[in-house]
Amino acid sequence: MSILVVGSVAFDSIRTPHGTVDRCLGGAATHFSLAASFFTKVRVIGVVGEDFTATEEAVFKARGIDIQGIERTTGKCFHWTGEYRENLNEAHTLRTDLNVFERFQPKIPEAYRDSEFLFLANIDPVLQQQVRKQMPKARMVCGDTMNYWIAGHRDNLLHVLRDLDGLLINDGEAKLLAGETNLVKAAERILALGPKTLIVKQGEYGATAFFSDHSFAQVKNRFFHAPALPLAEVVDPTGAGDSFAGGFFGYLASQPEITPSVFKRAMFYGGVMGSFAVERFGTERIRQLTREEIDQRFAAFRELSHLDAE
Amino acid sequence: MSILVVGSVAFDSIRTPHGTVDRCLGGAATHFSLAASFFTKVRVIGVVGEDFTATEEAVFKARGIDIQGIERTTGKCFHWTGEYRENLNEAHTLRTDLNVFERFQPKIPEAYRDSEFLFLANIDPVLQQQVRKQMPKARMVCGDTMNYWIAGHRDNLLHVLRDLDGLLINDGEAKLLAGETNLVKAAERILALGPKTLIVKQGEYGATAFFSDHSFAQVKNRFFHAPALPLAEVVDPTGAGDSFAGGFFGYLASQPEITPSVFKRAMFYGGVMGSFAVERFGTERIRQLTREEIDQRFAAFRELSHLDAE
Repeated sequence: MSILVVGSVAFDSIRTPHGTVDRCLGGAATHFSLAASFFTKVRVIGVVGEDFTATEEAVFKARGIDIQGIERTTGKCFHWTGEYRENLNEAHTLRTDLNVFERFQPKIPEAYRDSEFLFLANIDPVLQQQVRKQMPKARMVCGDTMNYWIAGHRDNLLHVLRDLDGLLINDGEAKLLAGETNLVKAAERILALGPKTLIVKQGEYGATAFFSDHSFAQVKNRFFHAPALPLAEVVDPTGAGDSFAGGFFGYLASQPEITPSVFKRAMFYGGVMGSFAVERFGTERIRQLTREEIDQRFAAFRELSHLDAE
Repeated sequence: MSILVVGSVAFDSIRTPHGTVDRCLGGAATHFSLAASFFTKVRVIGVVGEDFTATEEAVFKARGIDIQGIERTTGKCFHWTGEYRENLNEAHTLRTDLNVFERFQPKIPEAYRDSEFLFLANIDPVLQQQVRKQMPKARMVCGDTMNYWIAGHRDNLLHVLRDLDGLLINDGEAKLLAGETNLVKAAERILALGPKTLIVKQGEYGATAFFSDHSFAQVKNRFFHAPALPLAEVVDPTGAGDSFAGGFFGYLASQPEITPSVFKRAMFYGGVMGSFAVERFGTERIRQLTREEIDQRFAAFRELSHLDAE
């Protein structure tokens, strides 16, 4: 099944303890679609400026990603400047130039309307809701958000949450959204807001899914945990969460039916794609990835966590 | 096989967001031996004062734990007073009364000398080494330590590490010991100090084992991760790490041979016992536990983390 993702396509200038990189291709929709493209067809809705050239376009094309939904307009691409210090789990934003993103009004090409899987990457919840409304036939809708929208645009966000099959956010965002520091209680509160499943991304600790009684995955238990690969070097954490989401949702969309087993494997594939993403700056690692490497690492995740695997 | 554990038997006065408790039975050797007693015979070496009465003795006796190695002397038991605030992973020590523990000189009863499994709980590394030296026949020796010894008694600690089959410490202790914030690199440095296997206890995130080339478990991979059970309520984290160690080492000692599969199951049993320990204050939950509950929770840990379990 095709996935439609709406989100940012951007340039990132990043400093980490491993070095710096200036204006590399980034943005949630970029990281998401590259990761998902290893599993299924991906269509992107976003907006870029005149500095989005054939070079950037080629990154998507090389992975067979449909970018007719990326609107080109006058001005410059969204540009994020940030750094990671000792604690690689925490990004410090140095500068945000919204540029063309400031006036972004998502438009859905006719050819995209049959997409059954919809991913609302981290953008203004008002825009997420607009896209959601235009895709009534989407049978599975997952989304992401961030502290900025949780803290300052809560009512708009609550509208989006009400309809979601799955919400993918990180630990800190879940606790902020719920106003509760215990993750299990926080998850209960979030599930009560509407999402049928909550997937909490925990960085170096993996990811935990919490299921409501109406969860699409019909998993018998209340939660499922996917490990993270212990990594000696995290070069650049930017895009790890989006790559997780892309691997997770891409695998789900590639399967004929979403059984508990498929859901769990999707969690592992999310972890696999996140673990690759951080090995190099920007999209560098994922762009060079092969399906064989993905399967090898999936096996490593299994060996890392399973009693009977060796 | 019998386990011999040396460590503190104490009273704890604890405040957590769930309440307070005054002078409940605690100490690393207590928590460890109660958890291990569900798997194998346990013998304890420690020291107590006149305030250790038939009531406390009965706690050990009820679990069939051999306490002839607990020396009784004049004075009072070690008494720890501490609290946990919002962050339940971090204990704040309000007061430490060493009392009889200040002059503790471990003596090994003749009847204990055939113990093949030795656990050196968190005490002065000089005492850990004394006990180790008196038990040349122990074929498997694991130990714990804490920031106080890592920071201020490093040379003594390094003597102990050189000979250990397994070191069980928490995340922060591992990073402090290695002087390295990346856990994989920290583990490499610690394994270079002697321990054949490093087990890092990560609280609500489970535990990760790192294997040297000489690891007793002969696991093919470089690491193994056991999950933690997501808990809506952590009443009192005191003793969780010692209960983990007791479950882990108790299960190992109960098996005829330590295969990779046995090692991995031991990690899960560690998590299981840690997850029970925090449900009530002090030793309360573990004392009331049944083997059936342990096995049920082991199954829950498997379902939580395994792709094919349901």
